[in-house]
Amino acid sequence: LNDATGTPERIAAPEPGVVGGITIRAAGQPTRAAVLSVGSELLLGDLTDTNATWISRRLKEQGVEVVHHLAVRDDLAEFVSALDWLAERTHLVIIGGGLGPTSDDLTREAVASTAGVELEHREDLAEEIARRFAAMDRHMAPANLKQAMIPAGADAWPPAGTAPAFGMTLTSPTPTRIIALPGVPWELHQLWDDHVAAEVAALAGRRVTVTRILHVVGRGESDVAAVVEPLVDARPEATLAFLAKAHEIQVRLTVSADDREAAFAASQPLVDEVTAALAGGVAGVDDEDLETVVLRMLTEAGQTVSTAESATGGDISARLARIPGASRALVGGAVVYAMDAKHDLLDVPTSLLDEHGSVSGPITEALAAGARARTGTDWAIAVTGVAGPGTVDGLPVGSCFWALAHPDGHVEVHGQRIPGDRTQVIARLGTVAIDLLRRRLAGT
Amino acid sequence: LNDATGTPERIAAPEPGVVGGITIRAAGQPTRAAVLSVGSELLLGDLTDTNATWISRRLKEQGVEVVHHLAVRDDLAEFVSALDWLAERTHLVIIGGGLGPTSDDLTREAVASTAGVELEHREDLAEEIARRFAAMDRHMAPANLKQAMIPAGADAWPPAGTAPAFGMTLTSPTPTRIIALPGVPWELHQLWDDHVAAEVAALAGRRVTVTRILHVVGRGESDVAAVVEPLVDARPEATLAFLAKAHEIQVRLTVSADDREAAFAASQPLVDEVTAALAGGVAGVDDEDLETVVLRMLTEAGQTVSTAESATGGDISARLARIPGASRALVGGAVVYAMDAKHDLLDVPTSLLDEHGSVSGPITEALAAGARARTGTDWAIAVTGVAGPGTVDGLPVGSCFWALAHPDGHVEVHGQRIPGDRTQVIARLGTVAIDLLRRRLAGT
Repeated sequence: LNDATGTPERIAAPEPGVVGGITIRAAGQPTRAAVLSVGSELLLGDLTDTNATWISRRLKEQGVEVVHHLAVRDDLAEFVSALDWLAERTHLVIIGGGLGPTSDDLTREAVASTAGVELEHREDLAEEIARRFAAMDRHMAPANLKQAMIPAGADAWPPAGTAPAFGMTLTSPTPTRIIALPGVPWELHQLWDDHVAAEVAALAGRRVTVTRILHVVGRGESDVAAVVEPLVDARPEATLAFLAKAHEIQVRLTVSADDREAAFAASQPLVDEVTAALAGGVAGVDDEDLETVVLRMLTEAGQTVSTAESATGGDISARLARIPGASRALVGGAVVYAMDAKHDLLDVPTSLLDEHGSVSGPITEALAAGARARTGTDWAIAVTGVAGPGTVDGLPVGSCFWALAHPDGHVEVHGQRIPGDRTQVIARLGTVAIDLLRRRLAGT
Repeated sequence: LNDATGTPERIAAPEPGVVGGITIRAAGQPTRAAVLSVGSELLLGDLTDTNATWISRRLKEQGVEVVHHLAVRDDLAEFVSALDWLAERTHLVIIGGGLGPTSDDLTREAVASTAGVELEHREDLAEEIARRFAAMDRHMAPANLKQAMIPAGADAWPPAGTAPAFGMTLTSPTPTRIIALPGVPWELHQLWDDHVAAEVAALAGRRVTVTRILHVVGRGESDVAAVVEPLVDARPEATLAFLAKAHEIQVRLTVSADDREAAFAASQPLVDEVTAALAGGVAGVDDEDLETVVLRMLTEAGQTVSTAESATGGDISARLARIPGASRALVGGAVVYAMDAKHDLLDVPTSLLDEHGSVSGPITEALAAGARARTGTDWAIAVTGVAGPGTVDGLPVGSCFWALAHPDGHVEVHGQRIPGDRTQVIARLGTVAIDLLRRRLAGT
C-alpha cells in the first residue's frame, strides 16, 4: 500500500448486467473491470498513463471494481495475450489507444483476433470520417479509411475526433464486454460521457450516478474524513471518496438515482449538509476551486484585490491570474522578495524593517496596507515567510505570516508554522492567504 | 499509438545475463522486463502510476525492453496470478509498492508464494529497521518487524526509508529475476541508484550507462530532433530520447562505457557538440533548468533582477522564487495586471498607455525601465500579452511582448504571436522572457 486515500465503496448487490441481450454478469456479483492501455510510448517511459486513473475513477463512481491496469506495446501478439488474460478475469475491459490510422494502431486487429472474427468495412463510418475531415478543411489520407474497419459484430460509435470507437462482447470463455476508445484524453472523455457511461450503468445494474466535488482548504484529510464519513454513511444512495491535492482536499460525493436530474437533485441536500459541517472549509463546489470562487465573489461585489508577496514570490497573484476573466478583479501588486523592495515598491518604513525583521507580523501588515494604498484596491493580501531550505533571522523553515487589508482600511494579520518543503510551504501559504479573503467575502 | 516521442534504441546483441550465478537471459537475446505496481489506490483512480514511467525510462536507458506495466490491488490471489503471468513473459519484473508494515502490504507474501518458499525473519534487517526508527526518534510499532521478513533465499537490501527491498530469482518455468522496491518515489529512486542499476547492467549484459539531460527552450521538438539525431547516429556508444514538457524539450543522451566515470567522460564531447549545434537553445544541462541557470549566472556576476508582469500575473517571478537561494539575485517586482497598476506601481505615463494600449512594445519597454528604476536592479524583465480566452484592444489571443532592461539602462523589446491556450501562453511567454536574460548573461 502506498498512501491510499480512497475509502471502500458499499456495492449494492446489483441486478444482472445485460448488454445487447447477453448476460455478462450474474445478479449479486460485483462488476469487475480492467483498463488496457495501448502504446509503446507508455512502455518507453515517455508518457504516464493518466487515462487509467481517469477511467478508474469514473468506473468506481459507477460501482465497478477495477482489478487491473495493464499496458502493452504496439505488438499484436503481446496485445492479444494481454486481452485474453484480462477477459478471463473481468466482465469489462476498457481499451485506451491504438485506434489511429497507422500500422502501429492495432486495437481493431487485436479485438477481432481475440473474438475470432474478421474486420469489416463500415460505409457509414467511412462517410462520417470523410465528413469530419471536410469540416476541418483537412485532406483525408487513404490510411484514415482503415479507421472505418471494425470487428464484425461490434457496435460502433461515431468519432469524437476522427477515430470511431466500438464495443464488442466476447462470449468465450465467459462473457466479457470490450470497449475500445481512442487514447487522446479529450476524445476518450467525450465518448465516455456520450456512450460509455450509459453502457457501464446497464452492465453494473446501477442507476445513473452524479459526482459532486467539494474543494476543501485549510483542514487535514483525516480531520475532514472524521466529519464527512458519518454524514455519508447515513445515506444509502451515496458513496464517498477523498483526493488529496497540493492545495486542497477534494471530497467526492457520488449519488445514484433513476436519471441524472434526480441524482443531481438528490445530491444537493448532502452537499449542503457536508458544507455546513465543514464550517467554512468548503471553498467551492464542482468546477469552482478556491481561486475561481474568490474572483467570482469579488466580481459580483464589484470589488478589487491587490497582492504583496515575499515568500510566495508572485505565486498568489499568478494563481489568480490563471483564471479566465481575472482582470475584472485582480489589479496587480508587488513581489517584495528583497528587504529593499518592501521599502522601494510599497513604502514600508526602513525603521520598521530594522525593528521587526522582514518576516514578521508588523511588516506583513505594512505590506498589505502599502499594496492597498498604492493600487487603490478594496482588498489587499500580503504574505511573508521562511520557505526554506535555510532559516531567516533565526526563524525556522515554515514560519509564515499573512495579512488582509479590508475595504475600510483595517488590516488583520495571522501567523503560523506551515509544514512541508519549500514547494509545499509556498503553495500552502498562498492557499491560507487567498482563503482568508474568501472567508471575509463570505462574511465568515 | 498516442503520440510517441521516443526513438527506438539500437540494442547491441548483449552477452548473456547472469545474476547470482544463474543465467537468466541467453546471449544475443534482448532483455525483456515488466513493471508490477501494487496498491488499491491505483485501481481506485486516487493515484497515477508515475513509478512505472520512471522505471521504464531508466530501464530503456540501460537497453532493457519494457513489455508490460501491470497494476494490482492489495489482494494476494490477484497479485500472485499477475506475477506468474509476467514472470512467464519476461527476464525481469520490478515490483513497486506493498512493502509497508500493514496487513495490506502483500509483496513479501506474493513473491514467496510464487517462488514456493517460506518467509524468513532476518535479524540483520530487524536491527537495521530499529536503528532507522531510533535515528528519527520515532517509536517503532511491532508491525514494523514484519518488514524484516523476506522470502527465503532472497537478497535483501537495507532500506532507504524503513522498508527493506529485495531481489529474488525464480527458476521455473524460465529464470526470472524479481526485484521488489517500496512504492514511495524517493525510496524507490534511491534504492535504484544504490543497488538496482548495477544488477540491471549485469542482467542486460551492457556496460554502465550515464544519461545526460539537455534542457532546450525556444525551439520545437521536430526542429530539435532534426539537429540532434544525425549527431547521435554517428556515435555507436550513444542513444537518444526526447521528452516534451510545458516549458522545455528535454534531450536525453545515454552513453555506455566500462564504468561510470568513463561513461560520463565519453558523454561530455557529445553534450558539447549538441549544445553547439542547437546554437544557444540549450538553457541548462542535467540538474540545471532555465531558472536555476539564470539565478546561478546572476549570482556569479553579483547582479540582480526585477520583474514587471502583466499577462503572466506573477508567474515569472514565482518560477524564479521556487529555486532555493533565489533571494541572492531576485529582488522583486510588480504585477501590473490592470491598466492603472502600470501607472501606480511602475510610473508608466498615462499618456503612453492611452496612445499605445496596454499590450504593446512601448508599454512593455516602459514597464521594464520602470521596474529597474524602482528596484535599483541591474536587469529587469517585463511582459505584456493577450493570454485569452478573450481579445484585448482587438489584438488576437497569443499576441505577446517581452522586454529586458540592461545594466546600462537600455531596453530591448521583442514581440511575437505565441500559440496555445491561456495556460500555455502564460508558460511560454514566461520562458521566452527568462531565456532572453539567460542569453544576454551568456553574451549571446
